[in-house]
Amino acid sequence: MRHRLDAVRDAFDGFTILTDRSDVRWASGFSGSSGWLVVGPQSATLVTDARYTERAIEESKDFGVDVLTVKAPSSIFSEVSRLTKGHVVGCRSASISHETWTNLTSHGIRLVEQDVTNLRRVKDPSEIETIARAAAIAAEALYETLPMIDVGVSERDIRDELDHRIRRLGGDGPSYDTIVAAGPTNSSIPHHAPSHHRLAEGEALVIDVGALVDGYHSDMTRTFFVGEVSDVLAAWYKVLLEAQEAGLATVRAGVSARDVDSACRTTLGGDAEFFVHGTGHGVGLDIHEHPFLNQTSQATLAVGEVVTVEPGLYRRGFGGIRIEDLVVVRDESAEILTSFPKDLTCLPSRRTT
Amino acid sequence: MRHRLDAVRDAFDGFTILTDRSDVRWASGFSGSSGWLVVGPQSATLVTDARYTERAIEESKDFGVDVLTVKAPSSIFSEVSRLTKGHVVGCRSASISHETWTNLTSHGIRLVEQDVTNLRRVKDPSEIETIARAAAIAAEALYETLPMIDVGVSERDIRDELDHRIRRLGGDGPSYDTIVAAGPTNSSIPHHAPSHHRLAEGEALVIDVGALVDGYHSDMTRTFFVGEVSDVLAAWYKVLLEAQEAGLATVRAGVSARDVDSACRTTLGGDAEFFVHGTGHGVGLDIHEHPFLNQTSQATLAVGEVVTVEPGLYRRGFGGIRIEDLVVVRDESAEILTSFPKDLTCLPSRRTT
Repeated sequence: MRHRLDAVRDAFDGFTILTDRSDVRWASGFSGSSGWLVVGPQSATLVTDARYTERAIEESKDFGVDVLTVKAPSSIFSEVSRLTKGHVVGCRSASISHETWTNLTSHGIRLVEQDVTNLRRVKDPSEIETIARAAAIAAEALYETLPMIDVGVSERDIRDELDHRIRRLGGDGPSYDTIVAAGPTNSSIPHHAPSHHRLAEGEALVIDVGALVDGYHSDMTRTFFVGEVSDVLAAWYKVLLEAQEAGLATVRAGVSARDVDSACRTTLGGDAEFFVHGTGHGVGLDIHEHPFLNQTSQATLAVGEVVTVEPGLYRRGFGGIRIEDLVVVRDESAEILTSFPKDLTCLPSRRTT
Repeated sequence: MRHRLDAVRDAFDGFTILTDRSDVRWASGFSGSSGWLVVGPQSATLVTDARYTERAIEESKDFGVDVLTVKAPSSIFSEVSRLTKGHVVGCRSASISHETWTNLTSHGIRLVEQDVTNLRRVKDPSEIETIARAAAIAAEALYETLPMIDVGVSERDIRDELDHRIRRLGGDGPSYDTIVAAGPTNSSIPHHAPSHHRLAEGEALVIDVGALVDGYHSDMTRTFFVGEVSDVLAAWYKVLLEAQEAGLATVRAGVSARDVDSACRTTLGGDAEFFVHGTGHGVGLDIHEHPFLNQTSQATLAVGEVVTVEPGLYRRGFGGIRIEDLVVVRDESAEILTSFPKDLTCLPSRRTT
């Protein structure tokens, strides 16, 4: 795993401090909540406190990292000063509080802006395998939850069942706050928090669920209909599914992230006005990370990136629908990790795979 | 609820920006993940984005706050500049990234350090009622989970059951990552993450669990023994319980937080060397907040503060135990919110209340 440290070294000529928890985990293996990684040309030191010493040594053993334990929280500044020996030090100003930045500079540390999060964009095979496992757990949890979905069941009931089953299936938990959104108002809010609202006949039901495995996230959305579906919602679902498939068909190495977004919007035609967010985002140790796929994105997709394709349509008081897959960017296509059917489905129904 | 804004105004002569999510929620009612509160002598403006406009208006209606929606994330800086009109602006540098602080100052905003988190220390009756509800839910979830606890059950199984039951009982979820730690190694780590370790005869079992209700946290720890308990662990439990009761007996308005900590340590006598963390902390919209009860604390307890009293003893390879209650500081005593028995209990057993 030492190549990750080398990538950090190649990106900046001098020392770099990683303070973002996902950056630290990626480069050192350390999963604790309190630790900085100081990377120099010849060395890398994980600075943490006594609560985490043993875990840090165990987790970082294949990463080429030394572990340094500081006793008092305040002594971390003098330790970083000692480790970086007066050199210019790269640091991501969005990942550190102003108070801490000020403390570092007042210890004579010469900080300059340096962002390593882009180094995490392309996943190696072991990362992809872990994300695929998370995606499979979430899909299985959704399968297992389908039988309970019926008129009168609340959004929270469904959320609770999904989260519980993710853990029973071996996930560390949900990958983010699971979204269950039903009916004309709730489903029209892209990030609705599950409520006590009970499902009623004819409602759209948006379920956005992922699992967390060893720090890696998955992300998937499916939309169902309760009992029966109106012609208008069915027509919306049809055009949205076409748009989502058009987005997926666009994904491959070398394509602009903006083109994936455009493929969705073009297919939606006049309904594109109801697609109020971007088409997707990278997924890894963070649930939202580079690259972002939207109308202003400057990113070009590369082999091994893991991204979502998730167009949606939302009209307040009418309803909302969203379809989302998680995919790996490959040379010629997208490899889909979320193997859950996307045919229009009214529930209750039986599992049909 | 407008008195909270007045408290912010009284604390600083000029404008204040609240950026910490709990500070914003406390002063404005707004629970979303993206929003700043700009408080001036005559006005208070909650600045958020379009995803949250309706929720912000609804949640803040009793707080005397205007809601302003910014379209692009970057325009928040010019809006704050316009709202604060060249005045000096108080802001907590620990609650804002260096990047954002720099963006504000480059828009001509004159920031100075200002921390309002202490204003949240004393809870009003409605806050205490919510925390008490959260504490009751967590206690009931623990009662309901006891029957499954037996040799061969894993820490994760117990954690999953607790978290599931918290939600079934009406909690919004666990208040923090639930701790279930069993046996000589795991129970000796104060913040152990539940593993696949299966309970074995004679092990200590530490369960640290709280519920989240309307943004407010609860916090409670109980230690059980699996099957039977050794004389040594039983003796440790006895002295720890005495120490915890001594800590509780010390809590009342006007007492130094350090004295509560000392009461625990003195009672532990020679075993105090195994008590490796502080005695407690405030609980509210954050799970750890002011005041902190430890050997270096400068705080004096005040009526209406909600704090934990949670001494523990830990010896690697031997085991660990912790007993924690959540209490309200009253004039003459501590009012205990966590009504779960503390007698030495070997499981499996029946509910005995």
